[in-house]
Amino acid sequence: MSQNPLRKSKQIIECVPNFSEGRRYEVIQEIESRFRDRKGVYMLDSRADSDHNRLVISLAGEPEPLADALIDAAKTSLRHIDMEKHTGGHPRIGAVDVISFTPLRNITMAECAELTHEFGARYYRETEIPVYFYEESATRPDRKNLEVVRKGQYELLCEEVKHNPDRRPDIGDPCLHPSAGATAIGARKLLVAFNVNLATADVGIAKKIAATLRSSSGGFRHVKAIGLALESRGAVQVSMNVTDYEKNSLYRVLEMVRMEARRYGVAVLGTEVYGMVSADALLDSAAYYMQTEGFSPEQIIEMRLLEMMGEEND
Amino acid sequence: MSQNPLRKSKQIIECVPNFSEGRRYEVIQEIESRFRDRKGVYMLDSRADSDHNRLVISLAGEPEPLADALIDAAKTSLRHIDMEKHTGGHPRIGAVDVISFTPLRNITMAECAELTHEFGARYYRETEIPVYFYEESATRPDRKNLEVVRKGQYELLCEEVKHNPDRRPDIGDPCLHPSAGATAIGARKLLVAFNVNLATADVGIAKKIAATLRSSSGGFRHVKAIGLALESRGAVQVSMNVTDYEKNSLYRVLEMVRMEARRYGVAVLGTEVYGMVSADALLDSAAYYMQTEGFSPEQIIEMRLLEMMGEEND
Repeated sequence: MSQNPLRKSKQIIECVPNFSEGRRYEVIQEIESRFRDRKGVYMLDSRADSDHNRLVISLAGEPEPLADALIDAAKTSLRHIDMEKHTGGHPRIGAVDVISFTPLRNITMAECAELTHEFGARYYRETEIPVYFYEESATRPDRKNLEVVRKGQYELLCEEVKHNPDRRPDIGDPCLHPSAGATAIGARKLLVAFNVNLATADVGIAKKIAATLRSSSGGFRHVKAIGLALESRGAVQVSMNVTDYEKNSLYRVLEMVRMEARRYGVAVLGTEVYGMVSADALLDSAAYYMQTEGFSPEQIIEMRLLEMMGEEND
Repeated sequence: MSQNPLRKSKQIIECVPNFSEGRRYEVIQEIESRFRDRKGVYMLDSRADSDHNRLVISLAGEPEPLADALIDAAKTSLRHIDMEKHTGGHPRIGAVDVISFTPLRNITMAECAELTHEFGARYYRETEIPVYFYEESATRPDRKNLEVVRKGQYELLCEEVKHNPDRRPDIGDPCLHPSAGATAIGARKLLVAFNVNLATADVGIAKKIAATLRSSSGGFRHVKAIGLALESRGAVQVSMNVTDYEKNSLYRVLEMVRMEARRYGVAVLGTEVYGMVSADALLDSAAYYMQTEGFSPEQIIEMRLLEMMGEEND
């Protein structure tokens, strides 16, 4: 354990690779195995969806060991996944469809974007899979949006790259990889999936509230929202993705839903945070409701321990 | 990193030793050094107070390396601190006045109390400093209360032990150590120092609210509270110790202060959490205000990382 307070602490990022395989158990296991028992790589979560035919793995760790593991996993995917035969409900352009890099500790978004560029070059060299950069890593403004990169999916993209220079990969051959397609790589902020359940069976109310919340209809800049029925509960849900919780705090989003719901005399039944979230997304909301002054995450035993364990392992 | 889900995870406790030295810089440094660069021991915080003439160190780690470090630090204190010459504003019975053990992860309060008993026996063997057990480690009901153990402080206690069997140490010679006195060792829950600042200059209001909150006058069972003036801010404070935040949640305590303050037309200016706190004390309050359903601390990236790093180091 180093006691030099000036020592630079370890950089920690989150990586979420998405693989186009959510059905074959042995393949899923083999891909996961590339991230297990690997020093400096922590597999936080792994979810395979057979309808989507997709595997989403959440990793955290230092950039270098993560990059090594990602390359290994991509090589494994190359051996088992053939995009010419792939079907599934989720949009995709390749066997390794997306790899996101998210800054967690001691690293800025700009540094994270730079990492993706270095990683993308190495990724193509070692796997021969062409790369598109999206979000904060995009080299062209339109490619910030992953949906633009993925438009028409694998089937259309591998035709269009042949004659449309506008669709060419950022790195690699203009032709996609014959079996693995292409991979979208991008630095992005942590996305929080946040749902608010309402005590009404009228899905119209959830849809109206969702419309006031979402960016696309004039709501919060970093919120995507839809209204859904929760049939089994006789309730409805405002289902949201908060793409920048630092700018659109969860408490603010929740209070806005509560405020709009009052117009209909409807109460909030409860909320759901789905998947992984960072501590500060919740602490920020706790601080609002509790009006804490001058509180630092360093005061939380677990956060302090994590910091010290990170330094110790250097 | 072990992947066996049945594997028992590491036990982590917090230890807070209090040393009767808050003035001599070299002695403070030497005591702190016993906890630095020591595998499995994490010094979360260290505060010396010259008025109290006392050093309070917050440690976390596994029971065994912590015990070794505590014994070493006690031996250091033996060499430098003479209770016959000690003065200071804080009640104390020895050079190492108190050592608390608090369960943090994978350990129950009962196991923690058992640990203190084993540790107490070893402590006396290796340092010859007699031991009193308090709180959850107490062997007699009256000694649950540290103030009962510490009554009359070092000066009176070292006289009384000679003729009053009621005051004899739980472990060790009936006579205290000639220079180091005795040490109180006890397993206890994490204490949260929680203050609520109110927008009034009338300290009477803070005192009245404190009286409704504290256990001793019929308030919450695990809350100690006093009312204070914050002269420089022209405000007042309800200053509290929450000795069991699992039973008396911070949000409930805060909402009770807000509710009582409304009687006087006074608003809450802000709150302060002083010193170290565990993540669940805050998450519990966040969950109340945000009405989260089925949320698990495992979903917090930092908590998950800490868990995985802990397993990896085995």
